[in-house]
Amino acid sequence: MQSLNQQIILRFLGLTAILNGFFMFIAYPFSWYYDEEAQWGILGAGTITVIIGFLLYVLNKPKSTNIQRKEGYLIVTLGWLTLSFTGCLPYLLSDTIPNITDALFETISGYSTTGSSILNNIESMPKGILFWRSATHWIGGMGIIVLTIAILPLLGIGGMQLFSAEAPGPSADKLHPRITETAKRLWLIYVVLTFAEFFLLKIAGMTWFDAINHAMATVSTGGFSTKNASLAHYNNFPIIQYIVIFFMFIAGTNFVLTYFALKGKVRKVIESEEFRYYVFAILSITSIIAIIILFFQEPTLQTSIEHPKVFGETESAIRHALFQVISVITTTGFVSADFTMWSFFASGIFFALFFLGGSAGSTSGGIKVMRHIIMLKNSFLEFKKSLHPNAIIPVRYNGKAIKQHIVFNILSFFVIYMLIFMTSSVILTFFGLDFISAMGAAASSLGNIGPAIGSVSPVDNFAHLSTGAKWFCSFLMLIGRLELFTVLILFSPSFWRRA
Amino acid sequence: MQSLNQQIILRFLGLTAILNGFFMFIAYPFSWYYDEEAQWGILGAGTITVIIGFLLYVLNKPKSTNIQRKEGYLIVTLGWLTLSFTGCLPYLLSDTIPNITDALFETISGYSTTGSSILNNIESMPKGILFWRSATHWIGGMGIIVLTIAILPLLGIGGMQLFSAEAPGPSADKLHPRITETAKRLWLIYVVLTFAEFFLLKIAGMTWFDAINHAMATVSTGGFSTKNASLAHYNNFPIIQYIVIFFMFIAGTNFVLTYFALKGKVRKVIESEEFRYYVFAILSITSIIAIIILFFQEPTLQTSIEHPKVFGETESAIRHALFQVISVITTTGFVSADFTMWSFFASGIFFALFFLGGSAGSTSGGIKVMRHIIMLKNSFLEFKKSLHPNAIIPVRYNGKAIKQHIVFNILSFFVIYMLIFMTSSVILTFFGLDFISAMGAAASSLGNIGPAIGSVSPVDNFAHLSTGAKWFCSFLMLIGRLELFTVLILFSPSFWRRA
Repeated sequence: MQSLNQQIILRFLGLTAILNGFFMFIAYPFSWYYDEEAQWGILGAGTITVIIGFLLYVLNKPKSTNIQRKEGYLIVTLGWLTLSFTGCLPYLLSDTIPNITDALFETISGYSTTGSSILNNIESMPKGILFWRSATHWIGGMGIIVLTIAILPLLGIGGMQLFSAEAPGPSADKLHPRITETAKRLWLIYVVLTFAEFFLLKIAGMTWFDAINHAMATVSTGGFSTKNASLAHYNNFPIIQYIVIFFMFIAGTNFVLTYFALKGKVRKVIESEEFRYYVFAILSITSIIAIIILFFQEPTLQTSIEHPKVFGETESAIRHALFQVISVITTTGFVSADFTMWSFFASGIFFALFFLGGSAGSTSGGIKVMRHIIMLKNSFLEFKKSLHPNAIIPVRYNGKAIKQHIVFNILSFFVIYMLIFMTSSVILTFFGLDFISAMGAAASSLGNIGPAIGSVSPVDNFAHLSTGAKWFCSFLMLIGRLELFTVLILFSPSFWRRA
Repeated sequence: MQSLNQQIILRFLGLTAILNGFFMFIAYPFSWYYDEEAQWGILGAGTITVIIGFLLYVLNKPKSTNIQRKEGYLIVTLGWLTLSFTGCLPYLLSDTIPNITDALFETISGYSTTGSSILNNIESMPKGILFWRSATHWIGGMGIIVLTIAILPLLGIGGMQLFSAEAPGPSADKLHPRITETAKRLWLIYVVLTFAEFFLLKIAGMTWFDAINHAMATVSTGGFSTKNASLAHYNNFPIIQYIVIFFMFIAGTNFVLTYFALKGKVRKVIESEEFRYYVFAILSITSIIAIIILFFQEPTLQTSIEHPKVFGETESAIRHALFQVISVITTTGFVSADFTMWSFFASGIFFALFFLGGSAGSTSGGIKVMRHIIMLKNSFLEFKKSLHPNAIIPVRYNGKAIKQHIVFNILSFFVIYMLIFMTSSVILTFFGLDFISAMGAAASSLGNIGPAIGSVSPVDNFAHLSTGAKWFCSFLMLIGRLELFTVLILFSPSFWRRA
């Protein structure tokens, strides 16, 4: 244990808290402007958080700036926990979510960009608190892409080994030799995308407050809305829904590809195997769902969310199909209609999509398209290998042979993911959920999606869950967001053994 | 294609059909004794099957007795299909199951030792047909253990490469240098176990007809009963249920271990890692389920099957817990009570058990304990590897280091298994099943279990499924029974390409 560089870990956590506190100060003016009671809670939370962060920062002067693998894992997990435990203060101190279990659930759901909520009446919440809620998404998304490669260099450390622990996918294309530069560029894209969506949503008719909140929740593939009905609130404004569809799609794309696209290197994007499968999955599944809505939806299975056909039935069916498919694949979790009412077949498809996930290197969670490509290719190779047991045939991805140990790592990831999913479903039934809701909550939490099926369907929320179930789902959101290994490794005895 | 030795494949299929026909002739006297109408159908089916088999055998004289890997895979899959297509003749010709979809479903469920049924009133069926139904289990179980290593040597071929394709597990301990001897010994154990259970059940109070049928359905981990209520029919005869529990347990144990136990080499059995985990899983999960039944089962959640407490509440709870846990783990599928009524938590546990399976080298289906052990051990090793990326640490099993490619193969098996499960669940919703029944039917069919959850629960059956769903479940039972690869490889283009 002494071999761990505790100073550098705590110093990093201090920086994380300071950053988090500054975002609370950004939320404050919203509450102040509307003269809300909650402003004092937000201000207090921000002050406490910054002070804690400042103390952690100045009291820990690392003798060495050298960072080991183990410290890397600890920084990522403890960083997320620091965000979560300070991030729930605005809810608690403003008395808007007075219960610690609920406050932490909502906060972890925010930072993990899941978007599951325990709020029964979102629209009655103070604006400052709603902004803070969306901000937790935005900070979480930023964390996923940039945090560990942008903050660590501030401490004088090149965080390549961390990036491999943190990046939402098995590996990341280097797009610039210097990692700090990479981080800055991706962060810039993230900010530009957020502002672009904000302006477009404002022009399309949203209030400026709703526009900034939805922009933050989209680009981070979070899914918190400022409306009780989520994006179904804008069913009479198809243009708003199309804007959100577009930005969910971009947020679920590898940010490195978005960078190339903005630099005009479109060929790089088109050549990406993951991008092509990602687009193919969206288009093919949208087609099936649209056909179900148009032709096979039984009259008894109406959506419980209002579902007006602004431009006619066909457009409406395609729009809602596209919206929900992209929302689930990118693990955003916005709702334009209740897909669990679109026949058993549609529910089945959406449940399967809970296990797909967006692209690696995006803000989306879940297993991710790239892992599925490698798993499918490997499965076909296994058949070949059964016939020719001595042949060595590597899995090829983006035209390159993938090293066997990476394929092995991906298979192990999937095995662990599914074992956790199965075990979690059983544990959630223990906490009183019915079977289908338990599986929905487990899959949705682990995949950072948001709405699920059963009693946690798109028109319900997680408020009715027992305390134990809420803590357990919070844990699942966290380990899902941090790609399982980063958190679970801390539970392995060998982690705490001296080298 | 010309490179395939078609003669030897067809000759083998001929032998399979002849064997199958002889079993039909064994079913005939039962129908004759009770003077049933069905006797003519059974006799006709047997005659047709033996003639087809005889023609296939004599018309195909292989120039070479050399058998390649590809022929091995074809023989296994086509052998099972030959059994199924001839095995449904008694149902069709006796007009007891006049529909080809239903007849084939019942037959494949038999040979795959699944035990799912489309019969609404089992007790009204002719005795000869019921015997034939149980016989399909027994033949299937025999096939799993012995067929490919006992029949192929008749053709003058050592089938080791087939055994590796056929054995219900990733590898099999050699227990005798000569494979024919091995086959004969395991077959002897299989027969001895069947007769032992038959006598014990008879002594315990079953009729001789019910005893022979239940013995055949237990030792093969099949699950067809001659009673509408399955083993719940004997809820007033706990001793009968305990006998069935014991033989289900043995049938789910590696037959090689049973052989060692009978030879007095008990140490070999105790030292087996899989056996210890198998026993541990049964005991620990039985304890949890018994506690649920005793203390937490809400009064509203009564079993719909009669559930008398013969020796008192505690004994009854333990007995039913043990019965259902062993029945599901060994993939037998006998029912002593409706476990889906034992709270959501119990349902969740049983659904998870659908993915466990018995021991490799037994007649049970599913993923199997051995694969889970290797997957769990590998998962822990993955954490170690994340910390020490350059270290080479093998997975150890039964004290030996497992070669990396075998671990890889097991992970791939699980990945393919879960992908098929997910896809199948969606496909079954397409065929009109509700979501939970679709997942239950998919998991149960693929794992060769029998009863599932939802509308295919232990007190329901598969009769109400649509034609498409029945064909699809039949396919799942077949590929599950033949360990996925054996069947799926025939769909891979590289299989049909010339070397």
